[in-house]
Amino acid sequence: MNCEIIAVGTELLLGQIVDTNSSWMGEQLALAGIDSHHQTKVGDNWSRIEEALRLGLERSDAIIVCGGLGPTQDDITREVIASVVNSNLVLDEVIAERIREMFRSRGRDMPENNLRQAMVPEGAHTIEQQPGTAPGLVVPVAIPGGDDKVIYAVPGVPYEMKEMVLGTILPDLQHRSGVTSVIESRVLRTWGQSESGLAELLSPRIAELETAGNPTLAFLASGVEGIKVRITAKAETSGEVEDILREEEEALRRLLGDLVFAVDEDNMESTVLTQLAQQGLTLGAIETTTGGYLAHRLSTARNGTGAFAGGVVARGPGILSYLLKGDPASWQPDDAAMQMARVARGILLSDVGIATTSIEDPARATESQPFGTAWLAVSMEGFETVEQVQLPGDLERIRQFSVISLLNLLRLHLQGLRP
Amino acid sequence: MNCEIIAVGTELLLGQIVDTNSSWMGEQLALAGIDSHHQTKVGDNWSRIEEALRLGLERSDAIIVCGGLGPTQDDITREVIASVVNSNLVLDEVIAERIREMFRSRGRDMPENNLRQAMVPEGAHTIEQQPGTAPGLVVPVAIPGGDDKVIYAVPGVPYEMKEMVLGTILPDLQHRSGVTSVIESRVLRTWGQSESGLAELLSPRIAELETAGNPTLAFLASGVEGIKVRITAKAETSGEVEDILREEEEALRRLLGDLVFAVDEDNMESTVLTQLAQQGLTLGAIETTTGGYLAHRLSTARNGTGAFAGGVVARGPGILSYLLKGDPASWQPDDAAMQMARVARGILLSDVGIATTSIEDPARATESQPFGTAWLAVSMEGFETVEQVQLPGDLERIRQFSVISLLNLLRLHLQGLRP
Repeated sequence: MNCEIIAVGTELLLGQIVDTNSSWMGEQLALAGIDSHHQTKVGDNWSRIEEALRLGLERSDAIIVCGGLGPTQDDITREVIASVVNSNLVLDEVIAERIREMFRSRGRDMPENNLRQAMVPEGAHTIEQQPGTAPGLVVPVAIPGGDDKVIYAVPGVPYEMKEMVLGTILPDLQHRSGVTSVIESRVLRTWGQSESGLAELLSPRIAELETAGNPTLAFLASGVEGIKVRITAKAETSGEVEDILREEEEALRRLLGDLVFAVDEDNMESTVLTQLAQQGLTLGAIETTTGGYLAHRLSTARNGTGAFAGGVVARGPGILSYLLKGDPASWQPDDAAMQMARVARGILLSDVGIATTSIEDPARATESQPFGTAWLAVSMEGFETVEQVQLPGDLERIRQFSVISLLNLLRLHLQGLRP
Repeated sequence: MNCEIIAVGTELLLGQIVDTNSSWMGEQLALAGIDSHHQTKVGDNWSRIEEALRLGLERSDAIIVCGGLGPTQDDITREVIASVVNSNLVLDEVIAERIREMFRSRGRDMPENNLRQAMVPEGAHTIEQQPGTAPGLVVPVAIPGGDDKVIYAVPGVPYEMKEMVLGTILPDLQHRSGVTSVIESRVLRTWGQSESGLAELLSPRIAELETAGNPTLAFLASGVEGIKVRITAKAETSGEVEDILREEEEALRRLLGDLVFAVDEDNMESTVLTQLAQQGLTLGAIETTTGGYLAHRLSTARNGTGAFAGGVVARGPGILSYLLKGDPASWQPDDAAMQMARVARGILLSDVGIATTSIEDPARATESQPFGTAWLAVSMEGFETVEQVQLPGDLERIRQFSVISLLNLLRLHLQGLRP
């Protein structure tokens, strides 16, 4: 089963919007075990959308078209699809009423052109999930002398698209691909090893799984966010899949130990904050080079943000002198980081203080402390540590690595994995 | 002249990396007056890259292929191009020596496979800019009975790609399109008006320009970052283009007034920080809901970061009580914001203090202060203000709008545009 993606919108071609929808769909298709070999952007142009659809029907089993379903004259995706499948558009009264009701409930008059969204190609049906005004479409395509194919159409609004893909399109694709069994994945997120290092650690298990064939493992690099190890399992029922995933997770954790910092959607900051919350602890952070990026990530974590008491971003000499009680230049950077972690607890009234500083100005770099040298400090009841690390890349990457490395240091201690 | 883009890399299809390169190139092509009707992602797969190239040569005048030029076995872009244009790959000794020298200068041994990158199709030439190890390629394609076409190949590493596109590819495309005149653009960045509002303000000028035809104007929405008004001018020489752009900028600024906050690559934070630096002032920021996003943007601005003294991110009750010298609940939010802006100057030892807080918890919202109500405060010698604004969207957008709105408030005062 092979599903290609066509993103429709002139603004995508002009670079006014980055096409993150295709990337997200690509990832979801991969997780569901469906290949996606082609992903295309086209403008709001009849002949080019048509050309892309015809090409897609030649080479793929399914197409997801994203965008161009709105109420304006630019939005021609549904008309082009109807033309490609030689079908007429007819008004779907249920959808039309749903759209009218959305406007009524917001106390607004409905411009008549909104009913264009209720036009559905004959033989197609609408997607049950409809978080916005535009319905998604499932359009079966009969291929003479061949297997039937399908065109899905979803709006370009990310949360609407995601609800339809997860709720209808992925299950429908799996059903069409003849997969009667249940396929599910779990992602173990690791930090601190290269892909080849992970492969070496897991090599005995990888060899066993290659023979067994189920579950399967894959490595997904995620830049500064570490490397994901994805377990994909297949079985007759959800319960059985769940058992396989759980057993495999346990097997991998035995080999990977403290490298695993989170599962699935959790990340480093939500893991750390959840740990803190469970232990009834709050966190304060002081940062220099990272300039607010640490605080920003802690404030916007998906879980546990209540444990984040606050932060101080020290850029100028005044605040640095205040935090360090004197001339910043008189401090060794490791001592300065440790001091800031301690001061964080006092200023931010938190149980745990963390701090990071680094050589961010190449002019201040020395042979023993080159550009990218960073110090990571943690201070809490009964535990204090400061680590010096050498981080790669430009200033942006040094900032990102500093934050993740510091949070990982705290995680290892909170989880009792490092003294 | 029509140039399509093919992004090569299985990781793009799998959604492990978002294809921001194509978006950037699409924007650059549009700015240079070159159409781009198709942008495609394909995996590291010979037949699919070949298929995409052949299709591109049928329908477009030029193709930019991005990615797959590295030293590993996955990187097959140059081999596929050579095959499509029926050419042999030959070792370019100059490039080979440049790659060897890069390794020597870093004191590292060069794995022999790096020389694959010095293989160039006969008849092609390499792009002069070569910031990394992989050279870019310009591959002319003779079309029997038609105009010649061209394939450009650039690495997927963004800064390498950008240098090659700006330095070689755009000028070459303009040359090929027979554009002997110079086309340049300038972007005025605005904040505080909708696209239709801007169009109304500019309507007399838009009418005049429609008759004249040069320069042209376009609106580009940039989400929370405001709306860009792009002026594109054409003339025989750079000097004449520069004159047209300057005069048009002046004409638009007369109509748009203080809505224009920056030009071209500058943004709100770099504008504010540059203003502060010019006036010899430093800035301290205290934030609650925005949780470090304000400090992060100020720390990572492209200009003027030296004027940012630092920030405090107040999330927990302890630090809030400290800043507000008592129970946070006893403060009205506008007074609290004003107080935090004042305190910022004292704590962060800065000349200017800014602060923002908002109703971030729907449970704390009231009819008069619904979710998304935010307060923006500025305190400096001889000037203090606090504004209440109602921001749309979810928490992420409220955070973004709060930061931009607060910086815009400070900008208007620093530029003497608002008392």
